[in-house]
Amino acid sequence: MNFLEERIKRDGIVKPGNVLKVDSFLNHQMDVHLMDQMGEEFKRRFADKPINKVLTIEASGIAIACSVARCLNVPMVFAKKSKSINIEGEMYVAEVESFTHKNTNQVIVSKKFLTPEDHVLIIDDFLANGCALQGLISIVEAAGATVEGLGIAIEKGFQIGGRVIRNLGYRLESLAIVDGMDAETGEIIFREQECVE
Amino acid sequence: MNFLEERIKRDGIVKPGNVLKVDSFLNHQMDVHLMDQMGEEFKRRFADKPINKVLTIEASGIAIACSVARCLNVPMVFAKKSKSINIEGEMYVAEVESFTHKNTNQVIVSKKFLTPEDHVLIIDDFLANGCALQGLISIVEAAGATVEGLGIAIEKGFQIGGRVIRNLGYRLESLAIVDGMDAETGEIIFREQECVE
Repeated sequence: MNFLEERIKRDGIVKPGNVLKVDSFLNHQMDVHLMDQMGEEFKRRFADKPINKVLTIEASGIAIACSVARCLNVPMVFAKKSKSINIEGEMYVAEVESFTHKNTNQVIVSKKFLTPEDHVLIIDDFLANGCALQGLISIVEAAGATVEGLGIAIEKGFQIGGRVIRNLGYRLESLAIVDGMDAETGEIIFREQECVE
Repeated sequence: MNFLEERIKRDGIVKPGNVLKVDSFLNHQMDVHLMDQMGEEFKRRFADKPINKVLTIEASGIAIACSVARCLNVPMVFAKKSKSINIEGEMYVAEVESFTHKNTNQVIVSKKFLTPEDHVLIIDDFLANGCALQGLISIVEAAGATVEGLGIAIEKGFQIGGRVIRNLGYRLESLAIVDGMDAETGEIIFREQECVE
Protein backbone atom coordinates (compact mmCIF):
# COMPACT_ATOMS: atom_id res chain seq x y z
CA MET A 1 0.00 0.00 0.00
CA ASN A 2 1.18 3.51 -0.70
CA PHE A 3 0.99 6.43 1.77
CA LEU A 4 -2.51 7.49 0.71
CA GLU A 5 -3.95 3.98 0.78
CA GLU A 6 -2.51 3.54 4.26
CA ARG A 7 -4.05 6.79 5.41
CA ILE A 8 -7.43 5.87 3.93
CA LYS A 9 -7.25 2.50 5.65
CA ARG A 10 -6.40 4.17 8.97
CA ASP A 11 -8.71 7.19 8.95
CA GLY A 12 -11.29 6.66 6.21
CA ILE A 13 -14.77 5.59 7.25
CA VAL A 14 -16.94 3.36 5.09
CA LYS A 15 -20.64 4.18 5.17
CA PRO A 16 -23.55 2.33 3.59
CA GLY A 17 -24.17 3.12 -0.08
CA ASN A 18 -20.50 2.97 -1.10
CA VAL A 19 -19.72 6.21 0.72
CA LEU A 20 -16.10 6.68 1.80
CA LYS A 21 -15.67 9.50 4.28
CA VAL A 22 -12.20 11.05 4.28
CA ASP A 23 -13.22 14.36 5.77
CA SER A 24 -10.72 14.16 8.63
CA PHE A 25 -7.73 14.57 6.29
CA LEU A 26 -8.77 15.24 2.68
CA ASN A 27 -11.92 17.28 2.08
CA HIS A 28 -13.06 19.14 5.19
CA GLN A 29 -10.16 19.01 7.62
CA MET A 30 -6.95 18.90 5.55
CA ASP A 31 -3.60 17.35 6.44
CA VAL A 32 -1.28 19.76 4.65
CA HIS A 33 1.68 17.37 4.81
CA LEU A 34 -0.37 14.68 3.11
CA MET A 35 -1.22 17.26 0.40
CA ASP A 36 2.51 17.84 -0.07
CA GLN A 37 3.21 14.11 -0.32
CA MET A 38 0.56 13.89 -3.01
CA GLY A 39 2.08 16.88 -4.78
CA GLU A 40 5.48 15.18 -4.88
CA GLU A 41 3.96 11.91 -6.08
CA PHE A 42 2.07 13.57 -8.95
CA LYS A 43 5.25 15.43 -9.89
CA ARG A 44 7.03 12.07 -10.09
CA ARG A 45 4.27 10.38 -12.09
CA PHE A 46 4.01 13.20 -14.65
CA ALA A 47 7.74 13.97 -14.81
CA ASP A 48 7.77 13.25 -18.57
CA LYS A 49 5.11 15.88 -19.30
CA PRO A 50 5.81 19.58 -20.03
CA ILE A 51 3.19 20.86 -17.57
CA ASN A 52 2.96 24.63 -17.15
CA LYS A 53 -0.42 24.91 -15.39
CA VAL A 54 -2.48 23.00 -12.86
CA LEU A 55 -6.27 23.13 -13.16
CA THR A 56 -8.79 22.02 -10.56
CA ILE A 57 -12.35 22.78 -9.51
CA GLU A 58 -13.60 24.34 -6.31
CA ALA A 59 -13.61 23.52 -3.50
CA SER A 60 -11.85 20.43 -2.17
CA GLY A 61 -9.51 20.06 -5.15
CA ILE A 62 -7.84 23.39 -4.39
CA ALA A 63 -5.58 22.24 -1.56
CA ILE A 64 -4.13 19.30 -3.49
CA ALA A 65 -3.80 21.37 -6.66
CA CYS A 66 -1.86 24.03 -4.74
CA SER A 67 0.61 21.42 -3.52
CA VAL A 68 1.05 20.01 -7.01
CA ALA A 69 1.53 23.51 -8.45
CA ARG A 70 4.13 24.27 -5.76
CA CYS A 71 6.04 21.07 -6.57
CA LEU A 72 5.92 21.81 -10.32
CA ASN A 73 6.61 25.53 -9.84
CA VAL A 74 3.66 26.57 -12.03
CA PRO A 75 0.45 28.56 -11.44
CA MET A 76 -2.79 26.89 -10.39
CA VAL A 77 -6.22 27.82 -11.75
CA PHE A 78 -9.44 26.67 -10.13
CA ALA A 79 -12.65 26.46 -12.10
CA LYS A 80 -15.75 27.85 -10.47
CA LYS A 81 -19.06 26.10 -10.15
CA SER A 82 -21.98 28.31 -10.89
CA LYS A 83 -25.65 28.23 -11.64
CA SER A 84 -25.26 31.59 -13.30
CA ILE A 85 -22.22 33.26 -14.75
CA ASN A 86 -20.78 35.81 -12.34
CA ILE A 87 -17.27 36.38 -13.61
CA GLU A 88 -16.93 39.49 -15.66
CA GLY A 89 -15.49 39.17 -19.16
CA GLU A 90 -15.04 36.26 -21.48
CA MET A 91 -14.93 32.78 -20.07
CA TYR A 92 -15.04 29.13 -21.00
CA VAL A 93 -18.19 27.42 -19.80
CA ALA A 94 -18.95 23.71 -19.58
CA GLU A 95 -22.45 22.52 -18.86
CA VAL A 96 -21.99 19.54 -16.57
CA GLU A 97 -24.79 17.12 -15.98
CA SER A 98 -24.61 15.33 -12.67
CA PHE A 99 -25.39 11.61 -12.74
CA THR A 100 -25.94 11.68 -8.99
CA HIS A 101 -28.05 14.78 -8.55
CA LYS A 102 -29.82 14.75 -11.93
CA ASN A 103 -29.17 18.45 -12.42
CA THR A 104 -26.89 20.60 -14.54
CA ASN A 105 -24.22 22.97 -13.29
CA GLN A 106 -21.87 25.29 -15.04
CA VAL A 107 -18.11 25.01 -14.67
CA ILE A 108 -16.35 28.21 -15.69
CA VAL A 109 -12.79 29.38 -16.28
CA SER A 110 -11.78 32.84 -17.44
CA LYS A 111 -10.30 32.86 -20.95
CA LYS A 112 -7.42 34.91 -19.60
CA PHE A 113 -6.03 31.90 -17.78
CA LEU A 114 -6.09 29.17 -20.43
CA THR A 115 -4.43 29.60 -23.83
CA PRO A 116 -3.30 27.30 -26.68
CA GLU A 117 0.21 27.45 -25.22
CA ASP A 118 -0.87 25.80 -21.97
CA HIS A 119 0.01 22.23 -21.03
CA VAL A 120 -2.42 21.38 -18.29
CA LEU A 121 -2.45 18.85 -15.47
CA ILE A 122 -5.99 18.47 -14.12
CA ILE A 123 -6.18 17.63 -10.41
CA ASP A 124 -9.10 16.63 -8.19
CA ASP A 125 -9.66 14.87 -4.91
CA PHE A 126 -12.32 12.34 -5.98
CA LEU A 127 -13.29 10.58 -9.18
CA ALA A 128 -16.56 8.66 -9.28
CA ASN A 129 -18.71 9.29 -12.36
CA GLY A 130 -16.31 11.94 -13.57
CA CYS A 131 -18.84 14.62 -14.47
CA ALA A 132 -16.77 17.52 -13.18
CA LEU A 133 -13.58 16.19 -14.78
CA GLN A 134 -15.31 15.85 -18.14
CA GLY A 135 -16.25 19.52 -17.86
CA LEU A 136 -12.66 20.49 -17.08
CA ILE A 137 -11.36 18.47 -20.04
CA SER A 138 -13.85 20.15 -22.37
CA ILE A 139 -12.76 23.58 -21.14
CA VAL A 140 -9.06 22.82 -21.72
CA GLU A 141 -9.86 21.50 -25.20
CA ALA A 142 -12.03 24.55 -25.95
CA ALA A 143 -9.08 26.78 -25.06
CA GLY A 144 -6.89 24.91 -27.53
CA ALA A 145 -4.65 23.92 -24.66
CA THR A 146 -3.27 20.42 -24.09
CA VAL A 147 -4.49 18.03 -21.40
CA GLU A 148 -1.21 16.43 -20.32
CA GLY A 149 -2.93 14.26 -17.76
CA LEU A 150 -5.28 13.96 -14.84
CA GLY A 151 -4.23 13.30 -11.26
CA ILE A 152 -6.78 12.09 -8.73
CA ALA A 153 -6.38 11.33 -5.06
CA ILE A 154 -9.13 8.71 -4.72
CA GLU A 155 -10.85 6.97 -7.61
CA LYS A 156 -13.91 4.86 -7.03
CA GLY A 157 -12.94 2.06 -9.38
CA PHE A 158 -16.41 0.54 -9.36
CA GLN A 159 -17.93 3.67 -10.89
CA ILE A 160 -17.69 4.68 -14.49
CA GLY A 161 -15.59 7.87 -14.45
CA GLY A 162 -12.09 6.41 -14.59
CA ARG A 163 -12.93 4.01 -17.39
CA VAL A 164 -14.53 6.78 -19.49
CA ILE A 165 -11.53 9.07 -19.16
CA ARG A 166 -8.98 6.31 -19.90
CA ASN A 167 -11.09 5.15 -22.87
CA LEU A 168 -10.93 8.69 -24.24
CA GLY A 169 -7.15 8.30 -24.29
CA TYR A 170 -6.22 10.56 -21.44
CA ARG A 171 -3.44 9.68 -19.02
CA LEU A 172 -5.18 9.30 -15.66
CA GLU A 173 -3.24 8.62 -12.48
CA SER A 174 -5.17 7.89 -9.29
CA LEU A 175 -3.14 7.53 -6.10
CA ALA A 176 -5.72 5.17 -4.61
CA ILE A 177 -8.30 3.19 -6.56
CA VAL A 178 -11.02 1.74 -4.38
CA ASP A 179 -12.52 -1.33 -6.02
CA GLY A 180 -14.85 -2.22 -3.18
CA MET A 181 -15.98 -1.30 0.30
CA ASP A 182 -17.88 -3.08 3.02
CA ALA A 183 -19.77 -0.79 5.39
CA GLU A 184 -20.30 -3.62 7.90
CA THR A 185 -16.68 -4.67 8.30
CA GLY A 186 -15.15 -1.34 7.26
CA GLU A 187 -12.98 -3.21 4.76
CA ILE A 188 -11.66 -1.26 1.77
CA ILE A 189 -10.28 -3.11 -1.27
CA PHE A 190 -7.66 -1.20 -3.25
CA ARG A 191 -6.74 -2.02 -6.82
CA GLU A 192 -3.15 -3.15 -7.06
CA GLN A 193 -0.96 -0.53 -8.65
CA GLU A 194 2.73 0.17 -9.13
CA CYS A 195 4.34 0.32 -5.69
CA VAL A 196 5.06 3.85 -4.49
CA GLU A 197 6.89 5.05 -1.39
CA MET B 1 4.54 48.93 0.37
CA ASN B 2 4.74 45.29 1.34
CA PHE B 3 4.90 42.39 -1.14
CA LEU B 4 1.13 42.00 -1.42
CA GLU B 5 0.46 45.71 -1.87
CA GLU B 6 3.11 45.77 -4.60
CA ARG B 7 1.50 42.82 -6.33
CA ILE B 8 -1.96 44.38 -6.11
CA LYS B 9 -0.58 47.63 -7.54
CA ARG B 10 1.08 45.72 -10.39
CA ASP B 11 -1.60 43.16 -11.31
CA GLY B 12 -4.83 44.25 -9.64
CA ILE B 13 -7.46 45.91 -11.81
CA VAL B 14 -9.80 48.57 -10.49
CA LYS B 15 -13.32 48.43 -11.88
CA PRO B 16 -16.22 50.84 -11.37
CA GLY B 17 -18.23 50.30 -8.19
CA ASN B 18 -15.18 49.79 -5.94
CA VAL B 19 -14.42 46.41 -7.45
CA LEU B 20 -10.80 45.25 -7.21
CA LYS B 21 -10.03 42.30 -9.49
CA VAL B 22 -7.14 40.15 -8.31
CA ASP B 23 -8.15 37.01 -10.19
CA SER B 24 -4.80 36.68 -11.97
CA PHE B 25 -2.96 35.82 -8.73
CA LEU B 26 -5.32 35.44 -5.74
CA ASN B 27 -8.79 34.04 -6.37
CA HIS B 28 -9.06 32.32 -9.75
CA GLN B 29 -5.51 31.83 -10.98
CA MET B 30 -3.28 31.44 -7.91
CA ASP B 31 0.37 32.31 -7.51
CA VAL B 32 1.43 29.59 -5.09
CA HIS B 33 4.64 31.38 -4.13
CA LEU B 34 2.63 34.46 -3.16
CA MET B 35 0.46 32.17 -1.02
CA ASP B 36 3.60 30.94 0.72
CA GLN B 37 4.83 34.49 1.32
CA MET B 38 1.48 35.27 2.91
CA GLY B 39 1.72 32.11 5.01
CA GLU B 40 5.10 33.17 6.36
CA GLU B 41 3.89 36.70 7.06
CA PHE B 42 0.84 35.50 9.00
CA LYS B 43 3.09 33.13 10.94
CA ARG B 44 5.26 36.13 11.88
CA ARG B 45 2.31 38.33 12.84
CA PHE B 46 0.67 35.69 15.03
CA ALA B 47 3.90 34.28 16.48
CA ASP B 48 2.73 35.12 20.03
CA LYS B 49 -0.45 33.02 19.68
CA PRO B 50 -0.74 29.28 20.48
CA ILE B 51 -2.51 28.42 17.23
CA ASN B 52 -3.26 24.73 16.62
CA LYS B 53 -5.77 25.01 13.78
CA VAL B 54 -6.43 27.20 10.74
CA LEU B 55 -10.04 27.76 9.69
CA THR B 56 -11.23 29.23 6.40
CA ILE B 57 -14.28 29.09 4.14
CA GLU B 58 -14.55 27.69 0.65
CA ALA B 59 -13.42 28.39 -1.96
CA SER B 60 -10.78 31.07 -2.47
CA GLY B 61 -9.62 31.10 1.16
CA ILE B 62 -8.44 27.50 0.92
CA ALA B 63 -5.15 28.13 -0.88
CA ILE B 64 -3.96 30.83 1.54
CA ALA B 65 -5.15 28.83 4.54
CA CYS B 66 -3.17 25.80 3.33
CA SER B 67 0.00 27.87 3.15
CA VAL B 68 -0.59 29.29 6.63
CA ALA B 69 -1.29 25.81 8.02
CA ARG B 70 1.90 24.51 6.40
CA CYS B 71 3.97 27.33 7.95
CA LEU B 72 2.40 26.75 11.38
CA ASN B 73 2.53 22.95 11.04
CA VAL B 74 -1.14 22.54 12.02
CA PRO B 75 -4.24 21.15 10.27
CA MET B 76 -6.56 23.34 8.20
CA VAL B 77 -10.35 23.11 8.20
CA PHE B 78 -12.52 24.75 5.62
CA ALA B 79 -16.13 25.62 6.32
CA LYS B 80 -18.65 24.76 3.63
CA LYS B 81 -21.24 27.07 2.23
CA SER B 82 -24.60 25.46 1.80
CA LYS B 83 -28.20 26.26 1.19
CA SER B 84 -29.06 22.94 2.75
CA ILE B 85 -27.12 20.77 5.13
CA ASN B 86 -25.37 17.92 3.32
CA ILE B 87 -22.68 16.79 5.74
CA GLU B 88 -23.66 13.75 7.65
CA GLY B 89 -23.55 13.90 11.43
CA GLU B 90 -23.41 16.73 13.88
CA MET B 91 -22.19 20.08 12.73
CA TYR B 92 -21.95 23.71 13.69
CA VAL B 93 -24.10 25.92 11.51
CA ALA B 94 -24.04 29.70 11.17
CA GLU B 95 -26.79 31.48 9.29
CA VAL B 96 -25.02 34.25 7.43
CA GLU B 97 -26.94 37.14 5.96
CA SER B 98 -25.27 38.75 2.99
CA PHE B 99 -25.34 42.56 2.93
CA THR B 100 -24.55 42.48 -0.77
CA HIS B 101 -26.88 39.81 -2.05
CA LYS B 102 -29.71 40.25 0.50
CA ASN B 103 -29.95 36.53 1.05
CA THR B 104 -29.01 34.04 3.75
CA ASN B 105 -26.52 31.20 3.45
CA GLN B 106 -25.40 28.53 5.84
CA VAL B 107 -21.79 28.11 6.84
CA ILE B 108 -21.11 24.68 8.30
CA VAL B 109 -18.26 22.90 10.08
CA SER B 110 -18.38 19.35 11.41
CA LYS B 111 -18.26 19.20 15.21
CA LYS B 112 -15.51 16.60 14.90
CA PHE B 113 -13.04 19.25 13.79
CA LEU B 114 -13.54 22.04 16.34
CA THR B 115 -13.30 21.40 20.07
CA PRO B 116 -12.87 23.56 23.22
CA GLU B 117 -9.15 22.74 23.10
CA ASP B 118 -8.70 24.45 19.73
CA HIS B 119 -6.91 27.77 19.29
CA VAL B 120 -7.99 28.94 15.90
CA LEU B 121 -6.57 31.35 13.34
CA ILE B 122 -9.28 32.32 10.84
CA ILE B 123 -7.98 33.06 7.33
CA ASP B 124 -9.71 34.50 4.27
CA ASP B 125 -8.74 36.23 1.06
CA PHE B 126 -11.11 39.22 1.20
CA LEU B 127 -12.82 41.24 3.92
CA ALA B 128 -15.50 43.71 2.92
CA ASN B 129 -18.67 43.60 5.00
CA GLY B 130 -17.39 40.60 6.90
CA CYS B 131 -20.51 38.45 6.75
CA ALA B 132 -18.67 35.18 6.18
CA LEU B 133 -16.07 35.95 8.85
CA GLN B 134 -18.78 36.71 11.39
CA GLY B 135 -20.22 33.28 10.66
CA LEU B 136 -16.81 31.64 11.17
CA ILE B 137 -16.31 33.49 14.47
CA SER B 138 -19.72 32.37 15.71
CA ILE B 139 -18.89 28.77 14.83
CA VAL B 140 -15.58 28.85 16.70
CA GLU B 141 -17.30 30.41 19.72
CA ALA B 142 -20.10 27.83 19.55
CA ALA B 143 -17.49 25.08 19.67
CA GLY B 144 -16.02 26.60 22.85
CA ALA B 145 -12.75 27.06 20.96
CA THR B 146 -10.66 30.24 21.06
CA VAL B 147 -10.39 32.71 18.18
CA GLU B 148 -6.71 33.65 18.39
CA GLY B 149 -6.99 36.02 15.48
CA LEU B 150 -8.06 36.65 11.92
CA GLY B 151 -5.72 36.99 8.96
CA ILE B 152 -6.95 38.56 5.74
CA ALA B 153 -5.14 39.12 2.47
CA ILE B 154 -7.08 42.18 1.26
CA GLU B 155 -9.36 44.29 3.43
CA LYS B 156 -11.59 46.91 1.87
CA GLY B 157 -11.01 49.56 4.51
CA PHE B 158 -13.91 51.68 3.31
CA GLN B 159 -16.42 48.94 4.09
CA ILE B 160 -17.66 48.03 7.54
CA GLY B 161 -16.29 44.50 8.12
CA GLY B 162 -12.85 45.30 9.53
CA ARG B 163 -14.18 47.89 11.94
CA VAL B 164 -16.89 45.54 13.24
CA ILE B 165 -14.44 42.73 13.93
CA ARG B 166 -11.86 45.00 15.59
CA ASN B 167 -14.63 46.62 17.68
CA LEU B 168 -15.61 43.16 18.89
CA GLY B 169 -12.09 42.87 20.29
CA TYR B 170 -10.62 40.37 17.86
CA ARG B 171 -7.08 40.64 16.60
CA LEU B 172 -7.42 41.23 12.88
CA GLU B 173 -4.39 41.44 10.60
CA SER B 174 -4.91 42.40 6.96
CA LEU B 175 -1.86 42.28 4.72
CA ALA B 176 -3.28 45.03 2.49
CA ILE B 177 -5.97 47.52 3.49
CA VAL B 178 -7.44 49.36 0.52
CA ASP B 179 -8.84 52.72 1.64
CA GLY B 180 -9.80 53.93 -1.79
CA MET B 181 -9.77 53.13 -5.51
CA ASP B 182 -10.22 55.14 -8.66
CA ALA B 183 -11.53 53.17 -11.63
CA GLU B 184 -10.61 55.95 -14.05
CA THR B 185 -6.95 56.31 -13.12
CA GLY B 186 -6.53 52.79 -11.71
CA GLU B 187 -5.08 54.30 -8.53
CA ILE B 188 -5.31 52.25 -5.33
CA ILE B 189 -4.78 53.91 -1.95
CA PHE B 190 -3.42 51.62 0.75
CA ARG B 191 -3.70 52.38 4.46
CA GLU B 192 -0.27 52.84 5.98
CA GLN B 193 0.70 49.90 8.15
CA GLU B 194 3.78 48.57 9.90
CA CYS B 195 6.46 48.01 7.28
CA VAL B 196 6.91 44.39 6.29
CA GLU B 197 9.47 42.78 4.06
